[in-house]
Amino acid sequence: MNPASPLDNVRIVLSHTSHPGNIGATARAMKTMGLSKLYLVNPKFFPDSEADARASNARDILEAAQVCDNLTAALGDTFLAAALTARRRDLPHPAYSARQAAAELVQHARHYPVALLFGRESAGLTAAEISHCQLTVQIPANPDYSSLNLAAAVQVMAYELRMALEESVTEPYPAPHLPEAASLQEIEGLHHHLEQVMIHSGFLDPEQPKHLMRRMRRLFARTRLEKEEVNILRGLLAAVDPRRPFKS
Amino acid sequence: MNPASPLDNVRIVLSHTSHPGNIGATARAMKTMGLSKLYLVNPKFFPDSEADARASNARDILEAAQVCDNLTAALGDTFLAAALTARRRDLPHPAYSARQAAAELVQHARHYPVALLFGRESAGLTAAEISHCQLTVQIPANPDYSSLNLAAAVQVMAYELRMALEESVTEPYPAPHLPEAASLQEIEGLHHHLEQVMIHSGFLDPEQPKHLMRRMRRLFARTRLEKEEVNILRGLLAAVDPRRPFKS
Repeated sequence: MNPASPLDNVRIVLSHTSHPGNIGATARAMKTMGLSKLYLVNPKFFPDSEADARASNARDILEAAQVCDNLTAALGDTFLAAALTARRRDLPHPAYSARQAAAELVQHARHYPVALLFGRESAGLTAAEISHCQLTVQIPANPDYSSLNLAAAVQVMAYELRMALEESVTEPYPAPHLPEAASLQEIEGLHHHLEQVMIHSGFLDPEQPKHLMRRMRRLFARTRLEKEEVNILRGLLAAVDPRRPFKS
Repeated sequence: MNPASPLDNVRIVLSHTSHPGNIGATARAMKTMGLSKLYLVNPKFFPDSEADARASNARDILEAAQVCDNLTAALGDTFLAAALTARRRDLPHPAYSARQAAAELVQHARHYPVALLFGRESAGLTAAEISHCQLTVQIPANPDYSSLNLAAAVQVMAYELRMALEESVTEPYPAPHLPEAASLQEIEGLHHHLEQVMIHSGFLDPEQPKHLMRRMRRLFARTRLEKEEVNILRGLLAAVDPRRPFKS
């Protein structure tokens, strides 16, 4: 089964969620990153108005959510499941960082359904739940306070899944839109104009112009001036020139 | 100023937040990744019990949060500010992905305070707010629904900042060649001085200053002005001011 996007093959499974607001916020986090398959194992309250409110424009994901009464049903037809856990010593599985796990999940999701499992807000996943999964995932965090909110953890993982997908298609981040750059000639004209105004105003000693003009050149060189900016600066120089009008 | 961790030099600035729950969730998101400096520009409700509840064990960050009545006060002594925006065509600054921006911010934060700015839940940052920053940041997202919850966006950025730090620990960044950078406060002083000279010389209509000043802000934002350059430019402005001397 090769879906339109591998992300369509990644399901988010929330086990025993207490606060319906977190379910809504999870739906929103998923949708912003292009995920859509939500499974809920024994949620305490669902459906719920708080979930709807926090979902914002991702209510379609709540409406399509599958509610299951046990984990086996939720993971049923997946081929790889990853368990989100806090850092602990007693884990039975290899522990992946969020970024590593996302790359692994996306790679598999090109071919078949995979799952990412999140536990209770208070206590995370039980050892029994983790044992249903093939790998565990940890979000690198502050060792003194590593307790991410449930939906915030979903947001980070969904973001890493999207990033893993974008990187794997080697789609470079689009080049920033560039306004029309000034020509070197235009920039030379600006420097000459600036030097004249500096001299006319008494700011620059014409006998010793080197250092100051070199500083200004360096500043404008870093800037990569645009055509329109050169025009604005020259307009300003003309306006403040004590001996205006300046003829270029 | 080299703090214990570069993350201590990264401040999160929330502008005009409507929902106090998002402020609390932001504090939690920050603390899980080791960030601690929170600035609030005109929050609608703060302090607030909903903020406290959502902060969970990160109330210390709420208690230490700085509340400011304008953006300049919040960014005052930082040296680099990045604006979180949705993808748009009309942005004046180079757009970085979350990951690129995190690397850039952490590198600078080794040396001086930097800021990451988030706008209103409904409408994001205004063009005027963005013009205070040197770069814009976009979290890669679903083009059909890219509206992350505010605290979820903070969580992703805080996570990327931590990841950038962890990655840069193994391969230490060479200290960027840094002539002493101008503080945002010094740059604000320059903009104010420039505006005055523009008005005195008749170049700028004080009734319609917006567009031209925004262009100048954008130009100097790209430049990353140095302290000495600000001094040179202000010296020049003083010399050409038709109504000099200028008092700052």
